Amino acid sequence: MLKGVISVLPTPFTPDGTLDLVSLKKVVQLFVKAGVSGFTALGVTSEVSKLSDVEKRQIIETVIQELPENIPMIVGTTAEGTHNCIEASRIAMALGAAAIMVSPPRMPKLNTEAVVRHYKTLSDRVPVPIVVQDYPPISGYAMEPSLLIRIMKEIPKVIAIKLEDAPTPVKISRIREMSKDSSVAIFGGLGGTYLFEELLAGADGAMTGFAIPEILIEIVRSFQSGEVEKAKEIFYRYVAIMRFEFQEGIGMAIRKEILRRRGAIDFAGIRPPGTNLDESTIRALDELFAWYKKEGSPWI
Amino acid sequence: MLKGVISVLPTPFTPDGTLDLVSLKKVVQLFVKAGVSGFTALGVTSEVSKLSDVEKRQIIETVIQELPENIPMIVGTTAEGTHNCIEASRIAMALGAAAIMVSPPRMPKLNTEAVVRHYKTLSDRVPVPIVVQDYPPISGYAMEPSLLIRIMKEIPKVIAIKLEDAPTPVKISRIREMSKDSSVAIFGGLGGTYLFEELLAGADGAMTGFAIPEILIEIVRSFQSGEVEKAKEIFYRYVAIMRFEFQEGIGMAIRKEILRRRGAIDFAGIRPPGTNLDESTIRALDELFAWYKKEGSPWI
Amino acid sequence: MLKGVISVLPTPFTPDGTLDLVSLKKVVQLFVKAGVSGFTALGVTSEVSKLSDVEKRQIIETVIQELPENIPMIVGTTAEGTHNCIEASRIAMALGAAAIMVSPPRMPKLNTEAVVRHYKTLSDRVPVPIVVQDYPPISGYAMEPSLLIRIMKEIPKVIAIKLEDAPTPVKISRIREMSKDSSVAIFGGLGGTYLFEELLAGADGAMTGFAIPEILIEIVRSFQSGEVEKAKEIFYRYVAIMRFEFQEGIGMAIRKEILRRRGAIDFAGIRPPGTNLDESTIRALDELFAWYKKEGSPWI
Amino acid sequence: MLKGVISVLPTPFTPDGTLDLVSLKKVVQLFVKAGVSGFTALGVTSEVSKLSDVEKRQIIETVIQELPENIPMIVGTTAEGTHNCIEASRIAMALGAAAIMVSPPRMPKLNTEAVVRHYKTLSDRVPVPIVVQDYPPISGYAMEPSLLIRIMKEIPKVIAIKLEDAPTPVKISRIREMSKDSSVAIFGGLGGTYLFEELLAGADGAMTGFAIPEILIEIVRSFQSGEVEKAKEIFYRYVAIMRFEFQEGIGMAIRKEILRRRGAIDFAGIRPPGTNLDESTIRALDELFAWYKKEGSPWI
Repeated sequence: MLKGVISVLPTPFTPDGTLDLVSLKKVVQLFVKAGVSGFTALGVTSEVSKLSDVEKRQIIETVIQELPENIPMIVGTTAEGTHNCIEASRIAMALGAAAIMVSPPRMPKLNTEAVVRHYKTLSDRVPVPIVVQDYPPISGYAMEPSLLIRIMKEIPKVIAIKLEDAPTPVKISRIREMSKDSSVAIFGGLGGTYLFEELLAGADGAMTGFAIPEILIEIVRSFQSGEVEKAKEIFYRYVAIMRFEFQEGIGMAIRKEILRRRGAIDFAGIRPPGTNLDESTIRALDELFAWYKKEGSPWI
Repeated sequence: MLKGVISVLPTPFTPDGTLDLVSLKKVVQLFVKAGVSGFTALGVTSEVSKLSDVEKRQIIETVIQELPENIPMIVGTTAEGTHNCIEASRIAMALGAAAIMVSPPRMPKLNTEAVVRHYKTLSDRVPVPIVVQDYPPISGYAMEPSLLIRIMKEIPKVIAIKLEDAPTPVKISRIREMSKDSSVAIFGGLGGTYLFEELLAGADGAMTGFAIPEILIEIVRSFQSGEVEKAKEIFYRYVAIMRFEFQEGIGMAIRKEILRRRGAIDFAGIRPPGTNLDESTIRALDELFAWYKKEGSPWI
Repeated sequence: MLKGVISVLPTPFTPDGTLDLVSLKKVVQLFVKAGVSGFTALGVTSEVSKLSDVEKRQIIETVIQELPENIPMIVGTTAEGTHNCIEASRIAMALGAAAIMVSPPRMPKLNTEAVVRHYKTLSDRVPVPIVVQDYPPISGYAMEPSLLIRIMKEIPKVIAIKLEDAPTPVKISRIREMSKDSSVAIFGGLGGTYLFEELLAGADGAMTGFAIPEILIEIVRSFQSGEVEKAKEIFYRYVAIMRFEFQEGIGMAIRKEILRRRGAIDFAGIRPPGTNLDESTIRALDELFAWYKKEGSPWI
Repeated sequence: MLKGVISVLPTPFTPDGTLDLVSLKKVVQLFVKAGVSGFTALGVTSEVSKLSDVEKRQIIETVIQELPENIPMIVGTTAEGTHNCIEASRIAMALGAAAIMVSPPRMPKLNTEAVVRHYKTLSDRVPVPIVVQDYPPISGYAMEPSLLIRIMKEIPKVIAIKLEDAPTPVKISRIREMSKDSSVAIFGGLGGTYLFEELLAGADGAMTGFAIPEILIEIVRSFQSGEVEKAKEIFYRYVAIMRFEFQEGIGMAIRKEILRRRGAIDFAGIRPPGTNLDESTIRALDELFAWYKKEGSPWI
């Protein structure tokens, strides 16, 4: 059901820090035009942890309104408690989510059994497909391949795994090897910085927030239609900007600045206490853009 | 303004996981009768991370209704984003909170300046006194004494520091030494397990969720009225149960079980994915209770 | 083979920071007289990470010389690499260690398979019994009960598990339940602060550095000879001092200070960058000692 | 004194896990020919934590023998205790190290004052220049710019800072801004993956283990001689391979494999419990090499 490039949406704000839904719509429109296969709202890069419940609902509603029928919306509903996760998932489903994306809950002394129980309870209570997000920094817990495979097998509603636990290509390869008949999709993340290697290892696509999904789409499309050399060529030439965007601590701010330059959002700031861009980062981004322009990039 | 023993409230649930406000009222009544100087709602031990916004509001309203006028209610409003923290703090204030309790926000690459900015913005936007919670596991960030003192000096609305960063007596002693003229109160936490040492080091009291606050109250009252030997005697005799309750991962479940035995709450379970008590823990608690009863304890 | 109370030895230094082997001998003599069942040299509380290879050898030699024949010496040989662990284990064995104590190696992205492989390789290469140390802060890795049981089953040289992953009584109980026929011994740690509960849950004894092992010995002996009430009585009365000693960051310094007061070591300082005792901690220790003396303690 | 590209050396092993000093010499020769400005032995990428003291000495001796007089050798002497750090530093100095590289010691409850004290004691005891390594995963402690600047000011023997705390360009820019008159050099690390941005932000060069230092050298040389466009061009074209090499958990194994392909080392394996390369990673590396070859790279 899920494949290709699924964009995790940023959340634009006005300079005074309130939601800017007009910019959000423009981002959705830009990405639909780019050809993304789906969207994820309320992911980590959406600054979800800094949004109120009311704002989360407004975002879901705004995104769903902008989406053509054939493009699914996934909604992040990770929560520290199983109850909150179920409640958020029900709201997401009621508002039109095609699937929910859930990371293990943050909890002291979290363990294998508690993780499985969390997903099972969720699956029992909410009739919506589940994307399992393997992103250790969220929960402080790394899921080993054997645990992911157990979840894939025991919980039929799980339709995809989204991996952010580097090195992702090695983990994808290992999971594929250990679950050859599984129809669960596997997506890479990490801002697309290992997309080609993830595809080689067996990924079905990418689910990430990179601000120029056109590039990821062209790579995945080429790869999946057998044009591996072309996929590789594009990836190696463009990974410089993916890598630049994907900097710890300031990645979200860079993404928004690129989207601002693309005309999609009005104001690039992120919500406090997040870090906004300093001059040296802006200058480095200028250099990157200038170079790709000089190289005749169709996308930058 | 704040001193003595301030109880951090648990959040009772029914067996199906919904809020049990009747039990919550009974806990408040029991603790008022015990003589606590104040309450903190929505602390970590309140399972706050597993509550919805609606539930949080119901809890604040329930607590405030049960409180005599002279007993202040502090409300935990820690949030990952400054916006959410401000919003939660405004709601708390509107519902009658005498102060808010706030830990630094969880954030990758959090640093001194971002922490100060968070508290400053909060202080500028919400006219309510602030209790700074120093509890590294919440935010993944340990505040050094110099940072706490900077916050105490630069943000006049800060009226108290609540310490959970062991060894608390050493930290209290260091802060007192470095800020001799400060009128900011300092409270220990850690389930009361170092209360006597914290008082010796200069603490003004304890802010914690221990299920039998009568004991903490008697220790603090004795100490503060000059009966140090008595305070010590009680503390050394009762720290066995404080220590037992304060077990990582299962501490909240033990607290609730003790309150159930005290007749305050109906059902001792905690919300998933938290861990409930196993047989060995129940048996160990039985042993403790039996021993204190045999010793003629007025409280157990 | 291993049971009862096994003392993890401190490493005494002179004021200029060199090894004080004379004091070390006196500690061994004191503890032998106290009746310990065995010793562990080069544990975490021995400041092992701050010792040179030459010093480690001197310590092992010194301890072994002081030991009566019937008292076994375990030597900590945890290392980040399997090679270093094997080499250290061979040296320990050659010098007379009855067993080695090994925690999983610290490594980014450590996982179940790498942990098992580490213990297997070690077991294949060194003909000496192994104590598996489950102390998450050393390796940054928490071993779930299922992994510990797998190690107990697959590696016959494993003769004991030493648990420091709180809540230890729950973990002991769970492991016992899952491995009913196993003859592998289980020891609690955590400075003895949960010793009675660990025994109730099925522990065979304690392996820890508490400075007054006489107390632990009396508790374990009473418990194991069926005098559960007596074990409990002693434990509840003395856990106040175990708890005090077991403070994060300064626990080692307190241990040494108690041993200095007991006449075993000359100088209580720990090696930098460790923290030595501040005045507030010294005063709090004085209060504890005064109280136990007043109560007529045979041990303090 | 230090500038340009300083290569952190790998430690080659034979298939049975013993040191392969012949291969180590060949790596040094290859890198000298490449034009590196200096070497760092016993860094993190040297698998230093898996080496014995004897092996460390052999490595230093081997490297120093291969070095032309004008090329300095830095030796990593990070240790958990100040004593061990001093001892290792003295040995390094005696064997010919031009400087030592030291990260803060790993320690529970490490803090600003303990870090400064560690460097001060080291500086007082060992007459050798110091490179401060800011690599949070080693010590579990992130040094804020203000602390680094304090160290730069208070400890005259500190001649360079090596940064690995992403985003490094932002941190370099901030440190430069806050210490305009300082002559302390700043080096980026992170496998060269942000080298151009680090240079833009004010770095003096790179100190890292990337297996093809020729590329880094050409970038730094171009940048420093004013040919910024050329530096940029090379960097953007080659960051794809730097990024590939710099994968968490398997980076060291990839480095060794590249050096094996370059003819410098015989066997690419790393010491257990480290992870060796799986087929998917080998294949991905083949793809990278093939592409650069096709592009006519002078280096690959």
